[in-house]
Order: sequence, then C-alpha cells, then structure tokens
Amino acid sequence: MKAYRPHSGWKSKLHEIIYEADTPAGKLFDIVLFFLIILSVILVMLESIEEVDQNHHRLLLTLEWCITIFFSLEYIARLISIKKPWKYVFSFYGIIDFLSTIPLYLSYILAGSQVLLAVRAFRLLRVFRILKLVKFIGEASQLQSALKASRTKIAVFIYVVLILSVILGTLMYLVEGDEAGFTSIPRSIYWTIVTLTTVGYGDIAPQTPLGQFLATVIMILGYGIIAVPTGIVTAEFSRNGEKGKEGSNMVHVNTQACPNCSAEGHRDDATHCYNCGHLL
Amino acid sequence: MKAYRPHSGWKSKLHEIIYEADTPAGKLFDIVLFFLIILSVILVMLESIEEVDQNHHRLLLTLEWCITIFFSLEYIARLISIKKPWKYVFSFYGIIDFLSTIPLYLSYILAGSQVLLAVRAFRLLRVFRILKLVKFIGEASQLQSALKASRTKIAVFIYVVLILSVILGTLMYLVEGDEAGFTSIPRSIYWTIVTLTTVGYGDIAPQTPLGQFLATVIMILGYGIIAVPTGIVTAEFSRNGEKGKEGSNMVHVNTQACPNCSAEGHRDDATHCYNCGHLL
Amino acid sequence: MKAYRPHSGWKSKLHEIIYEADTPAGKLFDIVLFFLIILSVILVMLESIEEVDQNHHRLLLTLEWCITIFFSLEYIARLISIKKPWKYVFSFYGIIDFLSTIPLYLSYILAGSQVLLAVRAFRLLRVFRILKLVKFIGEASQLQSALKASRTKIAVFIYVVLILSVILGTLMYLVEGDEAGFTSIPRSIYWTIVTLTTVGYGDIAPQTPLGQFLATVIMILGYGIIAVPTGIVTAEFSRNGEKGKEGSNMVHVNTQACPNCSAEGHRDDATHCYNCGHLL
Amino acid sequence: MKAYRPHSGWKSKLHEIIYEADTPAGKLFDIVLFFLIILSVILVMLESIEEVDQNHHRLLLTLEWCITIFFSLEYIARLISIKKPWKYVFSFYGIIDFLSTIPLYLSYILAGSQVLLAVRAFRLLRVFRILKLVKFIGEASQLQSALKASRTKIAVFIYVVLILSVILGTLMYLVEGDEAGFTSIPRSIYWTIVTLTTVGYGDIAPQTPLGQFLATVIMILGYGIIAVPTGIVTAEFSRNGEKGKEGSNMVHVNTQACPNCSAEGHRDDATHCYNCGHLL
Repeated sequence: MKAYRPHSGWKSKLHEIIYEADTPAGKLFDIVLFFLIILSVILVMLESIEEVDQNHHRLLLTLEWCITIFFSLEYIARLISIKKPWKYVFSFYGIIDFLSTIPLYLSYILAGSQVLLAVRAFRLLRVFRILKLVKFIGEASQLQSALKASRTKIAVFIYVVLILSVILGTLMYLVEGDEAGFTSIPRSIYWTIVTLTTVGYGDIAPQTPLGQFLATVIMILGYGIIAVPTGIVTAEFSRNGEKGKEGSNMVHVNTQACPNCSAEGHRDDATHCYNCGHLL
Repeated sequence: MKAYRPHSGWKSKLHEIIYEADTPAGKLFDIVLFFLIILSVILVMLESIEEVDQNHHRLLLTLEWCITIFFSLEYIARLISIKKPWKYVFSFYGIIDFLSTIPLYLSYILAGSQVLLAVRAFRLLRVFRILKLVKFIGEASQLQSALKASRTKIAVFIYVVLILSVILGTLMYLVEGDEAGFTSIPRSIYWTIVTLTTVGYGDIAPQTPLGQFLATVIMILGYGIIAVPTGIVTAEFSRNGEKGKEGSNMVHVNTQACPNCSAEGHRDDATHCYNCGHLL
Repeated sequence: MKAYRPHSGWKSKLHEIIYEADTPAGKLFDIVLFFLIILSVILVMLESIEEVDQNHHRLLLTLEWCITIFFSLEYIARLISIKKPWKYVFSFYGIIDFLSTIPLYLSYILAGSQVLLAVRAFRLLRVFRILKLVKFIGEASQLQSALKASRTKIAVFIYVVLILSVILGTLMYLVEGDEAGFTSIPRSIYWTIVTLTTVGYGDIAPQTPLGQFLATVIMILGYGIIAVPTGIVTAEFSRNGEKGKEGSNMVHVNTQACPNCSAEGHRDDATHCYNCGHLL
Repeated sequence: MKAYRPHSGWKSKLHEIIYEADTPAGKLFDIVLFFLIILSVILVMLESIEEVDQNHHRLLLTLEWCITIFFSLEYIARLISIKKPWKYVFSFYGIIDFLSTIPLYLSYILAGSQVLLAVRAFRLLRVFRILKLVKFIGEASQLQSALKASRTKIAVFIYVVLILSVILGTLMYLVEGDEAGFTSIPRSIYWTIVTLTTVGYGDIAPQTPLGQFLATVIMILGYGIIAVPTGIVTAEFSRNGEKGKEGSNMVHVNTQACPNCSAEGHRDDATHCYNCGHLL
C-alpha cells in the first residue's frame, strides 16, 4: 500500500515512461533517448569541424532542430509529469537538461552566442542518468566506494603535489631564463605539473644544464610519486574484495588435528571434528 | 577407445604434423613455421623502408615468393588434412592464414593493391597459434584469468574516461582558440586523451592561461585516474595468488546448516558438524 | 605538575596565540596567517607575469608591503614570545620565516637582488606548519608512515635507475650523433631520464634506426620499471591497512621463550606460557 | 679447518685488501675505489661537453691519466693476488675492469678510437661490485627476489606488448601517409611503442582523423596495459612481505576464550592459556 498517489492517470503514465525503466515503454524511451543523445553529441562534433560544417550545413542543422525539438518536448513532459517541478528544474539533471536544450534557440536570439553551441556536448552527461535507471553500471558501485574510501588520502596527496609544483615551479623560474619559455611563475608551475605527471609536452623545455638537472629530479620525483595514488586505491580495492569474499564462504581454519581421525583444517572456533564428530 | 577415426592414413599423419605438436615431426614443423613467420614479418618491415627496398628489391622479392609459396602449400595442406575444411576457412586463424597468404598474388592481379602488402605483417598473429600448441605460454593463463575477472570493471573505467574526455575536450575547445591547434571538438578530444593518458605529444598545446590551468587539472586527473586500472588488476592478481597460497589455512565452506545445532559454515568435505559432532 | 613556567603574562599569552591552535584566538591567528600566505604567494605569481606587473605594479607593491610588514611583526613576536629565540631562528621553520620576510627589504638595499623576490614563493612552505597545528592532515600520517617504511627500498630503486640512466645515456651518446641533440653525455643522460620516466618532451629525439631501437628498449624498460615503486608503496599500504583490520585475529608476539618448555612466540601481554601454562 | 691456503703471505694480504671488505684496509680500499670510479665517470661526462673540454682539456687529461694508471695497477694487482687469474679475466667484472682501463691507451695507438673514450662511463658498473662487498644493498635482495619471481609473467607481458606494437604500427603505417612521419613500418612501430608506453615525444604524430582515432585507442590501451606489470610486481611484493612478516613475529590466533580467566586471542596451537596457564 504505497502512499504515492499520482495526480491523474495520463500524468502518472507519463511519469512511469520518462522517469522509470521497469515497463517496456519506459525501457524503449530510455533506449531512444540514449541514441538521440549520442547522435546529438556526434552532430555537435561534426559541426565543429569546419569542412564538414561547410559541406553539410543544411543537413546538420535540420537534424539538430529535430533533436532540439524532441528534447524540448521531453523537458516539458518532465515538468508536467512530476509533482514538484521546481525541485526538478534546480536539480543537477534538471539544469543539464535545460542547458542541453536551450543553446540552439539562444543562437537565434542573442548575437555572438553561437560559440555556446558547443555547450550542447554536455548533453553527454545526461547519459549517466539513463545508465543509472537501467542499472547498467552495477559494477561501478564497487569502483565508487573504493574511490570514496580513499578520498581524503587522495585529497592530501593532490594537495602535497600542488605545493610541490609551486615550489619547484618557482625554482625553475629562477634557474631558467625567459628564452626557454619560463616567462612567469604560473607558466613555470604549468611546466612543472606537465613534467611531474610525466605528460611532457615539450612546448616548454629547460635549456640550461642546471635547469635540466632540476628537471631530471622533478621527473624521478613524479615517477615515484605516481606510486602513491596507485598504492592508495589498490589497497582499498584489495580490502573491498576481501571483505566480500571472506564474509560469505571463507573462514580461517587452524592446524589442529582431530584426536580421533586426524582430520586437519578445523574452523578456529570448532569444538567437534567436522569429519567424525569427535570432541576436539 | 577414442571415437576419432581419421579418413585415411597420410591425411591423419599430415593432420598430426600440422595441427599438433606432440610428435617430433609436429614440433619441427612448428619451429620451422615460427621462424618463417618471423622472417616474413622482418621482410615486410624491410620492404617498407624505401632505401632498403630500392637497393635489395630483387632479394626481398625472391625471399617473399619463397615464403608465400610455402604458406600457400601449408594452407592447402591444412584444408586437405582437416575433416571440416569450411569450419577452418571461416575460423579466426583460417582467415588470418588466408589474409597472410593472398596479398602477394593480389598485387599482380589488382592495380593499386600494392598498399595491401603491409597486411602481411598481420602474419605475426599466426605466432599465437604456434605458441598455444607448444604450451609456451602456460604462465599467460594466470594473466588472462586476472584480466578476464576485472573485465567489467575495466570496461566501466574506459567508459567513464571516454565521457570525461568528451566533456573536457569540449571545454578546451571553448577555451582555446584555433591558433593553439584546437580547431574542432574531435581534435580537442584527441588532445584531451593525449593529456589524460600522460602521453603528451606536444603537437597541440594550450596557449591561454585559462587553457593551461584546465590542462593542469586534466593532467592531475589523469595522473590520479591511472591508479584505478592498476588497482583493479593488482587486486585481482593478489586474490589469484592468495587462492593458491592460502590453501594451507583457508578452506571453502558451504552454506549447509547442521540438522542438529543449525551451525553454518562447514567445510565442503565435512561429514560431521564441527560444532556438535552430529552427522551432516 | 609541569615544569614549564612562562616568564611573564602577556608573553605566555602571545606564545599561546602564535604557537598553539587550541584557543579561539590561536585558531583565528592561524586562519588569518594561512590566507595571508596564500595571498602573498598569488601576489608573487602575478608580479612575475610581465603584463600584469606593468599594469598593476602600484597595487601589487602596496599589498606586498602590507604583507611583509605583517610577517615582520609576526617574526618579531615569535622571537619575543619564545623562551629560546636562537633555537627558533636556526630551526627549519625559523629559516623559512626569515627568508619569506627579508626579500622585499633586500631589494631596496642590494642592487640586482630583485631576482630574489621570487624566493618569497617559498612562503608556501609555512603553510605546512599551520596545517600541523590545526591537525588538518591527520590522514597524512598514514601516508607518511607507509612512505617512511619503504624509504630504503625506494632509495635502492632510484639508485639503480640513476646508474641505468648513466649507462644507457652514454650508449645513446655513442649511437646518436650531435645533430639529433645528443651533444654531450650529461645531455644524453637527461634525455634517458626523460624517456625512462615516460615524460618524453621530444626536444631531443633519436634519428638513427639503431638509436630509435635503443630508445624503444629504454621506453619498455621504463614502462616496466614504474611497477617497482608502485609495488613497494602499495604493498606497504596494504600492510598498514591490514594491521588495523586484522586486529581481531592477529596479534604481535615477542621473542621471549618459556622458562619451562622453551616455547616461543608468546603474546606481548602474555603472563603464562600458552604451551605448558608456566608463569613467564 | 678451512682448506683455503694462500700461496704466499703478501699475496694473501693483497687478496684480502682487494677482494674483501672485512678488514680496515679492505674497507678503505673499497671506499677509495668507489670515489675514484665516481670521479672518473664525472670526468668522462665533463670531457663530452665541448666547451668544458676546450677550456680545461689539460686538467681533465691529467686527472684521467692518474685514474687510468691507478686502475691499471689495480687490475695487475687483482691478477697477481688471485689463484686462478684466467677465470677472473673472463668473468663479468674482469671484462668490465679491462674495458674501463684500456680506452685511454687505445686512443693513442689506434686512430679513430677516440670515440671509444665514452666507453669509460661503463666503469660505473664496477660500483656494483663494491656495493656487493660492503653489503650496502641488503634491502635490494628483496626487490630482486620479487622481480625474479615475476620474471616469466613479465616476459610474457613484454612479448604481447611487442606483438601488439608490430600489429598496431603496421596499421598506423597503412592509415597515415609519409608526410606525418610514418615513412616505414619500423618507424611506425617505434612511434607505436612511444605512444603505448605513454612517453609521447611528438616528433612523429598522426595527422589524419582516422590516424588520430587509432592513436587514441593505442593510448588508452597503453594506459590500461601499464596496470599489468604493476599488478604482477605488487602482488609479488605483498606476498613476499607477508611471508617475512608473518614468519617472524605475527601468528594467527583464534577466538577461543580461556575457560578459567576468559582471556581471548590464543595461538591456534595453544593448549594452555597464555594468561593464567589453565588448560584450554
């Protein structure tokens, strides 16, 4: 006897289709939405490539309008079918839904807002909601809990890395001149992080022997430091795995042998032999 | 009394030599094949180097013809000696065998198919079959099972990385102008993956302070994210190893309850309750 | 009855505010100091950017003077309120405090010391003291102990990496000519470390086939070697974690032998032999 | 009663000094040798820097001659003091010792052998012998045994990485034209390894969209693959650590309580309470 009572028949039906994924109609809606989102993101990408946009502008715009209209209708349907529309509007997904619908309209109203069209790529975030509904990523929860458990340690780690970067970046700024690309401290810090994380673009690279020596130290530091987040997350994963495993069907056994039948491997808390029943 | 009865004497002999590695002849065949494959791949590589090809074209071509003829004969022999030739033809290794034999013939028949000569390098895949036969990679099975067990988690991980890349790539496209190399969203996503995986070519690099700041965030993210697949695989490896190691003082217990005292967690091979001694 | 007795009322009060963080005033002082340090580091960064410095020189200088005067007063207060001022002056934080106060004064006295202004960025190190006081980084202690435990192993590892780099760097110097950028052995070693740590700037890159082959070997080596520090730290983390977790069924035993039966491995808190029951 | 009987007094004395490190003289010899090796390697490095060599050629040469003469005398002393000189000459360290002594002499005899002077940097390898003697790297043995245990797995791993590189490199050669730098298959394989190991020089970088897409796949592959060696080594370390740790001062205890005093946490094999001595 659930207390939830939808305000009217078709609204509750709509709610079921849009917000749930247990009925065939709800599932179909989610699948259609999923592919439309992927399609729309691909459209945004194609539009951003100049030559593609010049040759197929008309086609891309038409498809974009279809998707925008579908998303607009979906947004309105979501507003209607829910009991507390304002709560939805200001929720995370509500804002994402709004932002992924509005840009095309805006590009006609506001001059210069054409740049904002790329914002539509954030529609991709909507995919997460669908995946949550169809429980596709049940596996992800274990990942999430391991990351959550090691959150504080990772924060401390990033904090130390940042301070290290500022100190080392300033040092490199002092050592290397402007001609090597270390023109300011922030730029020098940027280079330090590029090096510490072993990314290494090479757009800025030390030229003086001392600078190269320091760079070497930073690299080996970065090479060693990477072990820390890995160690944290791995330890957490191992722990999580063991909890699950040992709780269910593994117990510690001791090396005591049954005085009657010499069977070994009794549970730590055993008082009788599992083999012959004799008192241990 | 095995039911398997080869259709004729020499065919069964041929089958034994080609498909098995237990007899001396079979072993020899595998070793010869192994070195021919390696040799042929080296030939393909040398051919692709322009100066080598110009100076030694005749020699390379002659050697290539020898190998191709050997592979052709081997392919025919495989077809003859097997009971269900069609099944072989459309199997994974059947297709690889065919593709690694045909290109040289095709280059004489079809104009412009010379480019396809490089396809011969895929002959290297044939090496895996030989290795499987001689059981060289018994060690690999543990690697494989660990990877297989963490497959779903890795898939979720790659999925999240891809979505992150699209979102961050779009952001960088909005922040950085064309002159820095971020000319389109796909190109921007390409750059994001280059940065997130800490590869960092440097062919595209952010120029604006905001872009460099964002790049910094992406790098540290990538630096931290690498901990996740490592953690997954390591936890899996440790678990696999422990199974073997802890054989001495850890046993599997089942969910059977004692009919007398309802104690749970008996050894799989238990016949008496470890608690009250009652027969299970 | 602690022997500590402050020399006078207001000095002990000052000491409490500056050196401790248990009273509201002490906490406030730490928070103010924290934000001033961050602000001053941001100022140093902004000053180093030429265009910002040119447009807002006056504002930056004024703010810098305010902070320097505050830091000067704080330094004097620290000297006054402590019982052994000289011990503080030559302690790690004492030197940092001094170095982060003096540069602005020096820049007026000594010609050419303007370059030293960047030294003020090391003020960031002062942040560590504040964090230690407010016990913000209690989590960090676990990180620290894990790193400390694996210190020797990491030192051996870095040592081996350095020797490897010298050997491989010399080899690359012999193989590659000057035109590829391998102009001297130290530069070649620099390149080797850049490659081994997978940073890969690309400012120096091998041109000859043999050099590229060697580079490939170095890369795969580096790719594999990174597993070692990660392995060390991870193993240490897992161990630390387990200590906590296995508190239930694992205890530390000492090396004491029973005087009666010579059995070893008693619990640290054992008073009787677990084997014969004799008093330990 | 050791069977070892040195042939004569001063020879056995010399042997003790050179080959052992237990006597004060032997220790001193090792320390002097250690610093001379380091010094000589630094000399080789400095010589390779053109400007340093031009300005201080005379000083560097003099120092080099001193070291070479010392090494020559040491080599002769090693030959004299050992019982089986030929065995030493053809041993690993015997060859290293010879190679690190001879280049300077050769540079006067053979024309063009000046290039070989860099070979002297391999003198660094001699350091390992000294370290072995003074047992400085006792910690390294654990590292070594962990690496040795995972040797086969790492070999399989590198083997798979190499085959992957050849296949993917050929694919990139087919996709990308000459203008992007993929001029031959070996060069293409070189690029693939540069990318797969996340080094990423950027001297060769894909230009076509398809090439960039493939590069992206290779990067993510490499990003994931790095987890495998790390996983292998870490699992081995954890195992090794546990062995050592548990063997010495940690034992499994069960949850049994003493019937007399209710103390908990007895050893698995305890028969008496560690607290009161009562029979368990």
